[in-house]
Amino acid sequence: MASKQYVHSAPNVSAGRDRAVVDAIVESVRGIPGVRLIDCYPDADFDRTPVELIGEPEPLAKALVALAGRAYELIDMRKQKGKHPRIGAQDTIPLFPLRNIGLDEVKDLAFRIGQELWEKYGVPIYFAGVNARSEERREISFIRQGQYEGLKKLLEENQDNPALLEARAPDLGKGLLSEKSGATIVSAGERNLVAVNVILNTTDLEIAKKIAKMVRGPSGGFSTIRAVAFTPDGYEEAAVSMNMFDTDSTPLYRVVELIRSEAAYFGVSVKGVQMSGVFPTKVLLRCADHYLHLLDFQEHQLLEHNMLMLEEEM
Amino acid sequence: MASKQYVHSAPNVSAGRDRAVVDAIVESVRGIPGVRLIDCYPDADFDRTPVELIGEPEPLAKALVALAGRAYELIDMRKQKGKHPRIGAQDTIPLFPLRNIGLDEVKDLAFRIGQELWEKYGVPIYFAGVNARSEERREISFIRQGQYEGLKKLLEENQDNPALLEARAPDLGKGLLSEKSGATIVSAGERNLVAVNVILNTTDLEIAKKIAKMVRGPSGGFSTIRAVAFTPDGYEEAAVSMNMFDTDSTPLYRVVELIRSEAAYFGVSVKGVQMSGVFPTKVLLRCADHYLHLLDFQEHQLLEHNMLMLEEEM
Repeated sequence: MASKQYVHSAPNVSAGRDRAVVDAIVESVRGIPGVRLIDCYPDADFDRTPVELIGEPEPLAKALVALAGRAYELIDMRKQKGKHPRIGAQDTIPLFPLRNIGLDEVKDLAFRIGQELWEKYGVPIYFAGVNARSEERREISFIRQGQYEGLKKLLEENQDNPALLEARAPDLGKGLLSEKSGATIVSAGERNLVAVNVILNTTDLEIAKKIAKMVRGPSGGFSTIRAVAFTPDGYEEAAVSMNMFDTDSTPLYRVVELIRSEAAYFGVSVKGVQMSGVFPTKVLLRCADHYLHLLDFQEHQLLEHNMLMLEEEM
Repeated sequence: MASKQYVHSAPNVSAGRDRAVVDAIVESVRGIPGVRLIDCYPDADFDRTPVELIGEPEPLAKALVALAGRAYELIDMRKQKGKHPRIGAQDTIPLFPLRNIGLDEVKDLAFRIGQELWEKYGVPIYFAGVNARSEERREISFIRQGQYEGLKKLLEENQDNPALLEARAPDLGKGLLSEKSGATIVSAGERNLVAVNVILNTTDLEIAKKIAKMVRGPSGGFSTIRAVAFTPDGYEEAAVSMNMFDTDSTPLYRVVELIRSEAAYFGVSVKGVQMSGVFPTKVLLRCADHYLHLLDFQEHQLLEHNMLMLEEEM
C-alpha cells in the first residue's frame, strides 16, 4: 500500500490590517479535500499574513494557486505598506517536504505552481530555494532587494540592460513586475526552522539583548541559531526570540538551559517558552527525553503515531 | 465530514513460549484494512503474549474475532502453564475508546465481539469492565479466580447449584468452560494505564523496593500509582516498575522527580525511564511542558496533529 505524501507550505500574503480582506483571501483554501489550513497570523504592523497549510501535493498546489489568485485580486501593491520587506501581493510560497516525499518532487511541484500562477494570472515569478536558477537567488532577501517599489523601478529603468535583467528580473515574466500584484517568490526547501521565544521574568529588554547575543551564532553562540530581543504581544516581559535552524544538532532544551543559566547571572529566571507557528512533535519529545532520559523508546509506542500510520495505509 | 473512529485493544493470548505458535496466531490480524498491529510481547515465563492493536471499530472487531479463532485452534489449555493468571486460550479482549468514539459505542462493540465468539467458536464468554453484569465482574481478577483449572472444576462440580453458577458461570455459554479453550473475558473501559519502569543506577533491588513502596498509593504514595521493584530484561540495574492509572492527575515527570529525590538519599541516581507498551503522546508532551514551561501552546502547532486531522477529514 502506498503511503500518502504530505507537503507543508507557509505562504505569505501582503495583507494584515484589513481583517475582511485577510479572511476573504484565506477563505479560498478552506474546504479543499486533501488540504488543511492550520492557521494564519495577520500582522497589522507588517501588513502581512503568514499562512500555514499542509496537504497532499496536488490538492495543496490547487489551494496555493487559489490563495494567490485571491491575493492578486484583493491586494493592490501600490497601496500596501508595512514594516516587513515584500515584493508582491502573494509575496512568497515556500514548500517543504513533510512526509513520504522527497525534496526533488517538491521542487517539481513548486516549479509547476510558479508556471501556473504566471500563465493564469500574469503575475511574474521568482524561484528561490532549490528552485533558484543561481546561487544568489536561493535567498529571498536577495530577490527582495529594493522591495516592490525599488525593484519595480529598477526593472523599468533597465529594460535595455541585459546584465541587470539577468541578475534581477523575474524567472517567469516579461522582465517587469505587475503594477498591482508585484511578483511572487516560489521555492522548495527542507523546513528546518523552529521559531521560539524564551520569555524572561524581566521587562528589561537590555538583558534579553545581551542573552540573545550570547545565544546566536554570529556573535559566538550556537551556529544554528539566530536570535533577537523583543517584547511579545500580550506580554510585558522581554523575550529572547530565536530562529532555530537545526533542532537535531542544537536541541531546544539545550538552548533553554543556556538561557536559564545566563539569565540567572542577571538575577532573572525564565518565565516560559513560547513556540511560534507549527513544528514537528519530535522537537518537544526530544526535550522530554533529555529531562527524563528515555531508554529503549520507540516511536511506535505513541498511539498517535499508529493512528497516522494506519491512515496512511488506507 | 465525519471523522474516523478509532478503538484500541490489548488482547492477551495464552501462548508465549513457542514462537511459531505466537507468530501464527498474531499473523491472523495482519493486513486487515483499517486495523494496525502495533506490537506483541511474547513472554516465556508467563506463557502468554499481550498484543496491541488499533483500528476502526468494525475491522478491529473482525481482527479480534480472527485472532481469538486462531488462539482457540492452536492453544490447548489442558497443556498451557505459565506464571500469569489466565482462564482461556484467548484470555482477555479489552477494548478502549481511542478517538472520535464514546465508551457506550465501544461497550456495544465489545458485546457483539463476545456474542460472535460464542456463536462461531462455542467458547464461553465473560463480560468485564463496563460490560460486566455485576459490580464484582467488572474486575478481571474476580472472574479469573481459580484460573482455568480451578474455575473449570468449580463449574463442573456445581452444575446443580444455581447460586454458584449465577456468581461464577460465564455470561455466554452453558455454564461450563471449554475443555480446550477455557473462556474469554471481553471488556470495554477507558484506557488509563501507562506502564513505566524507572531504572536506577544500582543493582540493589532492596533500594528499588523501598522506593516502590514510597511511590505507590496503598503505602502512602500517589493514589493513582501501583509500583513494584524488579530487574528489567536486558538490564542489571533495579527498577521501580509502575502502573500509572491517571497521568492527568499524577503526571510522569512528578513521579520521576520524586523517585530521583528518594534515590539520591541512598546515593543512587536515575539511569533512565523506560516506557512499556503504547501510550498517548501527551504523556511525554506534558513532561516537556513541565521542564520548559510552555506558554500559549496549542496542539495544532504540532505538524503531526494536523496530518492526523487531515486524514480524518478525508
